[in-house]
Amino acid sequence: MNRYTIANIPGDGTGREVLPAGVQVLSAVAQRCGFALEFRDFDWSCETYLATGKMMPDDGLTRLADHDAIFLGAVGYPGVPDHVSLWGLLLPIRREFDQYVNLRPVRLLPGIRSPLREKSTGDIDFWVVRENSEGEYSQIGGRTGTGEDEIVIQQAVFTRRGTDRILRYAFDFARKLGRPHVTSATKSNGLYHSMPFWDERFAAIGAEYPGIATDQYHIDILAARFVMSPERFDVVVGSNLFGDILSDLGPGVTGTIAVAPSANLNPSRRYPSMFEPVHGSAPDIAGQGIANPIGQIWSGAMMLDHLGEAEAAAMVLAAIEAVLRDPQAVLTPDLGGNGSTAVLTRQILEKLQGR
Amino acid sequence: MNRYTIANIPGDGTGREVLPAGVQVLSAVAQRCGFALEFRDFDWSCETYLATGKMMPDDGLTRLADHDAIFLGAVGYPGVPDHVSLWGLLLPIRREFDQYVNLRPVRLLPGIRSPLREKSTGDIDFWVVRENSEGEYSQIGGRTGTGEDEIVIQQAVFTRRGTDRILRYAFDFARKLGRPHVTSATKSNGLYHSMPFWDERFAAIGAEYPGIATDQYHIDILAARFVMSPERFDVVVGSNLFGDILSDLGPGVTGTIAVAPSANLNPSRRYPSMFEPVHGSAPDIAGQGIANPIGQIWSGAMMLDHLGEAEAAAMVLAAIEAVLRDPQAVLTPDLGGNGSTAVLTRQILEKLQGR
Ligand SMILES: CC(C)[C@H](C(=O)O)[C@@H](O)C(=O)O
Ligand SMILES: CC(C)[C@H](C(=O)O)[C@@H](O)C(=O)O
Repeated sequence: MNRYTIANIPGDGTGREVLPAGVQVLSAVAQRCGFALEFRDFDWSCETYLATGKMMPDDGLTRLADHDAIFLGAVGYPGVPDHVSLWGLLLPIRREFDQYVNLRPVRLLPGIRSPLREKSTGDIDFWVVRENSEGEYSQIGGRTGTGEDEIVIQQAVFTRRGTDRILRYAFDFARKLGRPHVTSATKSNGLYHSMPFWDERFAAIGAEYPGIATDQYHIDILAARFVMSPERFDVVVGSNLFGDILSDLGPGVTGTIAVAPSANLNPSRRYPSMFEPVHGSAPDIAGQGIANPIGQIWSGAMMLDHLGEAEAAAMVLAAIEAVLRDPQAVLTPDLGGNGSTAVLTRQILEKLQGR
Repeated sequence: MNRYTIANIPGDGTGREVLPAGVQVLSAVAQRCGFALEFRDFDWSCETYLATGKMMPDDGLTRLADHDAIFLGAVGYPGVPDHVSLWGLLLPIRREFDQYVNLRPVRLLPGIRSPLREKSTGDIDFWVVRENSEGEYSQIGGRTGTGEDEIVIQQAVFTRRGTDRILRYAFDFARKLGRPHVTSATKSNGLYHSMPFWDERFAAIGAEYPGIATDQYHIDILAARFVMSPERFDVVVGSNLFGDILSDLGPGVTGTIAVAPSANLNPSRRYPSMFEPVHGSAPDIAGQGIANPIGQIWSGAMMLDHLGEAEAAAMVLAAIEAVLRDPQAVLTPDLGGNGSTAVLTRQILEKLQGR
């Protein structure tokens, strides 16, 4: 029997409510499909930070390293500056474990109302492949001068290796999907050094994949096109910052911010990959038991897929879609229902068991 | 009689078709309102670049300097890399003339179909105030290493002076509009140095305006909110890059990419300000005489407003809206019609003359 060890990091706020829902569903599908998931809890969060001055212990990364995957809820807490909480936990994990791909589906799901007119289930269905380890997210830079004269420098760092590998991932992924079309997000008209380089590499890597069509748009107009013609995309590849923006905008366009999943992948499998919902810790509704667990559960499905349990992954996704398609389903408030996290999770479990 | 000298730069592609339409309408309203506009043409473009290796002559900026304003079509031409054409003309003008504000309306106009459901004219009506002179658009940085080892550095530079003045502009503008609510675009969770600084200054400047409500969102979720709840915004302020993205996304959401205007303002009036449509040179339709002139004409209205001719500005905007509201109007193909640039311009002129 295949056995996988998973490091759970519930984190803050609603992360602590949806992560257990994910664990419940994954455990159920593992049992049905005959593999074992062993979950170990790591209670690292902004509360840890407030108590200890650190988001995780000094040997935190080492302790995560021998797991098959990391399953994260959400991190962020009012009063703890985001750049502290994120650079103390999420971003070091992404970097140290070389999770250089952030992969997110943008999909109009059954039963979910897109803010766009005249789009229906299936009309919008593409993927954002985001560079997840370098680029604009950098701690290089700082402040100089004081008072009125202060100047702040922020460096972005693009390496040939880092750029090429994310572009290759996007092309390989498009090929695997059978949707041979990759769109690049650029801004080479304004960002003088980084983006002309990005474009050059996109052209060079694209040339290695003669069967795959390419196009590219500046990020400003690309964002507008996500709204105007989202049905045109198959795989969209972007830098860390551009991919971040597009992979929130996409779920915004499909009405799925609260249900969208994400995978932080180390494709080499040398280190564990990490799976987390797109939404944050939602302090405004935390503690009420009404957070939508679908983003977490769907992230769990992506984790199973990454672990090689593709059939189980597909079953979880099918169960989510079956609930959303069911007019009798009791959904959480974000989807216009009055159900709790627990009630929505129970319905997904039922669909999984074919009920 | 007030007299203003305007430097016309038609630029490339459809810029050469819509700029004359703008001149026609502005000349007509000037005549009606009793002021004089003297237009001087500067034929600087990518063709100039291909012929001379420069987008404009060495003394280009000096030649523009003694005009009251600059009226630009669009710059960009297949075969000339964008970062060459833009950094050779548009961006130096913005910088040398200290046009540190880029101001763009996001407005759902009558007769224009938003891609969003259930929004109607007036529901979406806000402004994006973009920093236009520093930040992420920087030529500082470069490439080092060769081949597989190449690394590219791109620096963003935020000064206290540059940050404070755009934030103050946004607050003053919100006050002038009578819509006391400013939203800041940030990404202080990922961009480690620049955006925490931006947030600090936003809080500090906000404190100078106790009557104005503030909120802030990370650019990823803010982009999603432009789609999910665009009616919530009044004035949105962002850095050069974030403002760029938001001020294309906004017109995308309101269906007005082809008609949206923009102003590059030097509020001190020490240097000329520049007015240009949001759309680019549209090489795909250039030469066919079917480009929508409204973005250019509306930019012209913003120019009149800046010059102090507020009444004339309002008349031009009213004429545009009257045409769009008229079910008999013959619009250009981008708005679903089969009219030409000339035909649409003529209708605007007619409305202006009260016909
Ligand atoms: C053409 C380009 C450099 C420019 C920018 O990004 O500033 C354009 O998108 C704009 O918004 O005016
Ligand atoms: C929390 C934040 C640092 C993070 C990011 O920008 O990467 C989030 O927005 C995401 O996309 O996972």
